[in-house]
Amino acid sequence: MVNPFFINNGPFKLYDILNELNLKTNKININLNVTDIKDLRNSKVGDITFFHSKKYKIAANNTKASFCITNKNLQNELPKSCIPIIVDNVLVSTSLVTAKFYPDSIDDDFDITAKDINETEFNDKVKFGKNVLLGKNVSIGSNCMIGHNTIIEKNVIIGNNCSVGSNTIIRNTLINNNVRILDNCVIGKHGFGFFPKHNKNLRYPHMGIVIIEDDCEIGCGSTIDRGSMSNTTIGKNTYLDNQIHIAHNVIIGENSIIAGQVGIAGSSIIGSNVKIGGQAGISGHLKIGNNVEIAGGSGVIKNIPDNSKVMGYPAKNIREFLKENR
Amino acid sequence: MVNPFFINNGPFKLYDILNELNLKTNKININLNVTDIKDLRNSKVGDITFFHSKKYKIAANNTKASFCITNKNLQNELPKSCIPIIVDNVLVSTSLVTAKFYPDSIDDDFDITAKDINETEFNDKVKFGKNVLLGKNVSIGSNCMIGHNTIIEKNVIIGNNCSVGSNTIIRNTLINNNVRILDNCVIGKHGFGFFPKHNKNLRYPHMGIVIIEDDCEIGCGSTIDRGSMSNTTIGKNTYLDNQIHIAHNVIIGENSIIAGQVGIAGSSIIGSNVKIGGQAGISGHLKIGNNVEIAGGSGVIKNIPDNSKVMGYPAKNIREFLKENR
Amino acid sequence: MVNPFFINNGPFKLYDILNELNLKTNKININLNVTDIKDLRNSKVGDITFFHSKKYKIAANNTKASFCITNKNLQNELPKSCIPIIVDNVLVSTSLVTAKFYPDSIDDDFDITAKDINETEFNDKVKFGKNVLLGKNVSIGSNCMIGHNTIIEKNVIIGNNCSVGSNTIIRNTLINNNVRILDNCVIGKHGFGFFPKHNKNLRYPHMGIVIIEDDCEIGCGSTIDRGSMSNTTIGKNTYLDNQIHIAHNVIIGENSIIAGQVGIAGSSIIGSNVKIGGQAGISGHLKIGNNVEIAGGSGVIKNIPDNSKVMGYPAKNIREFLKENR
Repeated sequence: MVNPFFINNGPFKLYDILNELNLKTNKININLNVTDIKDLRNSKVGDITFFHSKKYKIAANNTKASFCITNKNLQNELPKSCIPIIVDNVLVSTSLVTAKFYPDSIDDDFDITAKDINETEFNDKVKFGKNVLLGKNVSIGSNCMIGHNTIIEKNVIIGNNCSVGSNTIIRNTLINNNVRILDNCVIGKHGFGFFPKHNKNLRYPHMGIVIIEDDCEIGCGSTIDRGSMSNTTIGKNTYLDNQIHIAHNVIIGENSIIAGQVGIAGSSIIGSNVKIGGQAGISGHLKIGNNVEIAGGSGVIKNIPDNSKVMGYPAKNIREFLKENR
Repeated sequence: MVNPFFINNGPFKLYDILNELNLKTNKININLNVTDIKDLRNSKVGDITFFHSKKYKIAANNTKASFCITNKNLQNELPKSCIPIIVDNVLVSTSLVTAKFYPDSIDDDFDITAKDINETEFNDKVKFGKNVLLGKNVSIGSNCMIGHNTIIEKNVIIGNNCSVGSNTIIRNTLINNNVRILDNCVIGKHGFGFFPKHNKNLRYPHMGIVIIEDDCEIGCGSTIDRGSMSNTTIGKNTYLDNQIHIAHNVIIGENSIIAGQVGIAGSSIIGSNVKIGGQAGISGHLKIGNNVEIAGGSGVIKNIPDNSKVMGYPAKNIREFLKENR
Repeated sequence: MVNPFFINNGPFKLYDILNELNLKTNKININLNVTDIKDLRNSKVGDITFFHSKKYKIAANNTKASFCITNKNLQNELPKSCIPIIVDNVLVSTSLVTAKFYPDSIDDDFDITAKDINETEFNDKVKFGKNVLLGKNVSIGSNCMIGHNTIIEKNVIIGNNCSVGSNTIIRNTLINNNVRILDNCVIGKHGFGFFPKHNKNLRYPHMGIVIIEDDCEIGCGSTIDRGSMSNTTIGKNTYLDNQIHIAHNVIIGENSIIAGQVGIAGSSIIGSNVKIGGQAGISGHLKIGNNVEIAGGSGVIKNIPDNSKVMGYPAKNIREFLKENR
């Protein structure tokens, strides 16, 4: 995962991890080093991972992680090289451990490091409006414009020939070349992800970022959340209209066109050359193929294969929908 | 109703009220004092109330108000202790009288009293960004953060450990502890309430406020309007995602989870532990029970009993919906 | 078309136009003057126009334009007084030529001419908040208020007794009297119009403006895009709630009421006294009659005659819808 921003605070000793989870030592060598936290597939020797559902059994069988947060019923699926850490709630414990490795990825308070662009090295490299603020770890390419009152908070890389409008807020985002982001957007804040708990929900870390590839346009008042364990990506030459919401971990392909007020829920993957009409909604964890057309107002709750045209709620073949609704 | 902000300009003499309504004296003692304006149930001796529909007959029979704006057909439902004020259009007249008691509750021009936080007593109590403005009658607890360009307009009380993002505007709002309000929100403006009139609609007063209880999160770009005669309330530990619209007088219970782009129309009451999927809409004046799940994209136009799962437009039992739409 | 803002850069010699389109001279006198670009109906002698679909055959037969961008199959529909300019893609070529006449109408970078209102002639004529910016070619009437951080970019005329909220951005817009525009709006940016091209879409010019007539209210977080070849218009005493999106070229009549989160796609024409419920969507290029009521959440994909009440997706007669969905 491309991610230049969130810094791994590890390694930690295993006893630090067990301590975080309020676990007693259970015959494990608690002095072992734990390097990083990753998912089952991407973990390496020395890493800790997590395994909470039988759905991921094959990945669990083959993980290279040295440690795995899991529960009693699933522990036997892990290879011998992987020490199970048995907990009651795998996802809550994973969240706590991730927060230990990546403490900056939980909360999104305003960036107190942001200062007036006039006080930065970009004061003569960028065309900028009044009251523009830049945070720590920001880089801006050549021939860029940044509008009035816009805040580029920490952890943003902007390429060349980009234009950012006014009153926009960006953080934890990688923007390629020739990108236009219009007014009043919020890009790169943590996604709507937490473990519901009575009286006090538990936020989980968002250590993914937002990537906006070359030649994109993002319309006014849109929000694009950064990913939790992976990135949110808008593909090359994809255009978003106004008031669009793109949730965490969404991936959109190239040359797609998304009309006003569309919402795409978390972790859905949208192909290339896709057209989505105004106010359509796409549920989470779906796969929308290439060259798909989704009519305005549709509610998509299933995967859509390549080259389909759909309409309705739930969205179905457009001819069928129109025939049924003559 | 908890409402520390809108100040009653009364009492007025009855002739002032009649004058406001262009009514001639009709055998009433016009020198009587009128203390306040309230609804039928909450009025006390000395207050004026209003009664415009047979639906409220029982409340009218039992009101303790001394005066009631009503029409010819309804006047006989009032107790003898209550003097009827007969008008052509009860709601328009009520609006005019309410505006007399609460003149600040009609218009929401920008708060001209707002000044730079550096010039206020909060300059060393709050962690704040650039260009933060605070209006009259604002109080902020300990350990709070307020982001860049955020405007806390007049009549706002913020508890402890709260975090407000950047570019957000708040007024007429009571925020408890541990609340997070993200970027680009507008909270506490008057609701979308007015009497349609050709050529010139008549706005009606919004003397309610917004209350956000402990541990809530309000996502980016959301709007929460204050109430007209009652408050708009977001219950403890309820989380709102981005781009949500909560209209005037809505009450949401505790521990609820509301996904992106949801809209809840005026005066609807949502229970606790409710989950609402993205882009769902809820019509006005409905009652949604506790533990209800509303699927993304649904359009709810009827009351929903406790523990139901609904989907569709109009929303119905989710199993039924999915069966019909296989 | 009322349009005081976009200035015609012409006239050009015909060879400049042909050059822009990479066309070789084809027996035409390339020294002729081309005055302006307009549509088929509005063109005058000396103007260039465009003709890309048989739908517009009658208008083509009768155009007064001296030149017309068109294709081989359509060229014979033009009168003898009109010289056809034969191209492969009429709309793309039209876009290029329009951009030549109106170069300011393509891109919407932030307005670098905007300066603090304190440095302008309006510093003692307008009641204004902190950090208010005004661009070139802005005029503001008497008794107006402009809230904190609001940017009135270039090409805006505001009438008398208007109130603009905070954090709002307005450009290329004509606002009449007694208009209220609330917080966080973006009004007058270019519409979502471009020719999709692999790897690099081609934006087309938006030389229309936004017109907001007397006594309107525009809710928080709304976006109103300016028109491409015509204007986007909000009629007298029409009220928009929060988070509404009005696309380019939309025309809304008088005394209409549009609830929260409604979206109206490009070029649709909405009548007077129309009521649209929350989250309803209206497809592009439709005609909605006078006195129409559209229920919240509806998706309108057909023209709606005067005095109809509709509901559903696709929207149909409301009684029929409710009967089918009991």
